[in-house]
Amino acid sequence: MDDQIKAFVFDVYGTLFDVTAIKKECEELYPGYGETISQTWRSKQVEYFMLRQLMGNYATLYSITHEALTYALEENGLKSTEQNEQHLLETYLHLPLYEEVKEVLAELKDKKLVVFSNGSHDMLDPLIENAGLEDVFSEILSIDEIKQFKPAPASYQYAMEKLNLESHEVLFMSSNGWDISGAKNFGFQTAWINRKNLPTEQLGLEPDYVFPDLNGLLKWK
Amino acid sequence: MDDQIKAFVFDVYGTLFDVTAIKKECEELYPGYGETISQTWRSKQVEYFMLRQLMGNYATLYSITHEALTYALEENGLKSTEQNEQHLLETYLHLPLYEEVKEVLAELKDKKLVVFSNGSHDMLDPLIENAGLEDVFSEILSIDEIKQFKPAPASYQYAMEKLNLESHEVLFMSSNGWDISGAKNFGFQTAWINRKNLPTEQLGLEPDYVFPDLNGLLKWK
Repeated sequence: MDDQIKAFVFDVYGTLFDVTAIKKECEELYPGYGETISQTWRSKQVEYFMLRQLMGNYATLYSITHEALTYALEENGLKSTEQNEQHLLETYLHLPLYEEVKEVLAELKDKKLVVFSNGSHDMLDPLIENAGLEDVFSEILSIDEIKQFKPAPASYQYAMEKLNLESHEVLFMSSNGWDISGAKNFGFQTAWINRKNLPTEQLGLEPDYVFPDLNGLLKWK
Repeated sequence: MDDQIKAFVFDVYGTLFDVTAIKKECEELYPGYGETISQTWRSKQVEYFMLRQLMGNYATLYSITHEALTYALEENGLKSTEQNEQHLLETYLHLPLYEEVKEVLAELKDKKLVVFSNGSHDMLDPLIENAGLEDVFSEILSIDEIKQFKPAPASYQYAMEKLNLESHEVLFMSSNGWDISGAKNFGFQTAWINRKNLPTEQLGLEPDYVFPDLNGLLKWK
């Protein structure tokens, strides 16, 4: 199937950018709480967009990220101020790339490279620009354009139609098990970037490829 | 709105029954791993039914509970045997009730008491019978009858129609934030049984009542 691939489509948070970097900023504002705030913040962020998708109650990922942060601070009994929350939300616009990302994307520059994220453009576009990747991708697709979060089939359908491709012509990369499962369930080819060396999700949907980081993609160079 | 309540509808896992009791059985089979297995098992169980609902890829909660257990054992690098898995799955049929449950339900015996769960009847019916509650509830409703997991609106819609009531005539009890959010989003009256003293979910959906345990329901006695 390899030679059928017409677009390399990348998830963003956890896949290209290291979301665990928010721990450091949390620790600076709330000493001793960096680990627990950042873990709850990220897990609630994911839970909340899934719940909103399930309930049919859309909000942008930026707004959800803010709400998840409010919850994380409250759970730890910490005083939340609008100034602190805005400061921490800013970290989402300046996340660091995983170390191999720039080099691998440069090696694949002759391919069609696309971003497809649950992030809304208000957080996605500055992040990619701040990382100096704005010329690397031919398209930055956000589910905000149809308000259907991954892993709902309608979200992948939207990306496929925007790219004017068949589902098996897309190779989709994500480090998130739920995202790879959703993409596979829809019909994309999938490469799970298993950065944390986790077991495969038990959902009856095996990824087509599993790599520890993006260097695995160099086989298509 | 109180006098409009025509049915008291209860979630099961975490609300009537203590799912944290699985820790003890996990610890006996896998010494030193009881806490981590049981936590991953429960969190993956919840994640998997949400993902299957999002992907439109239904399986019964019994099957999902089995798959979540397989994942939890694998994540911890533990040897899984079919015998061990069956033994641990059996614990889901013999969960302990929270201590106040029987007494509170007995006090409310003149009311219409109903169970409404994501559990399939193969796990729900034995659990309720083993706890001696089979005569307490007038109906045991499972989402398996329509294959739409809570918190999707279609699930609550199903319960409402089975009870032949209007949404505001139902008072729904759950300890799970996602379930209370989903029920409130649909239009039920909601009483969050906040057993772990957690913050309210930041989803723009406040529960109508918050009680630390079911004793709060005695105001409707």
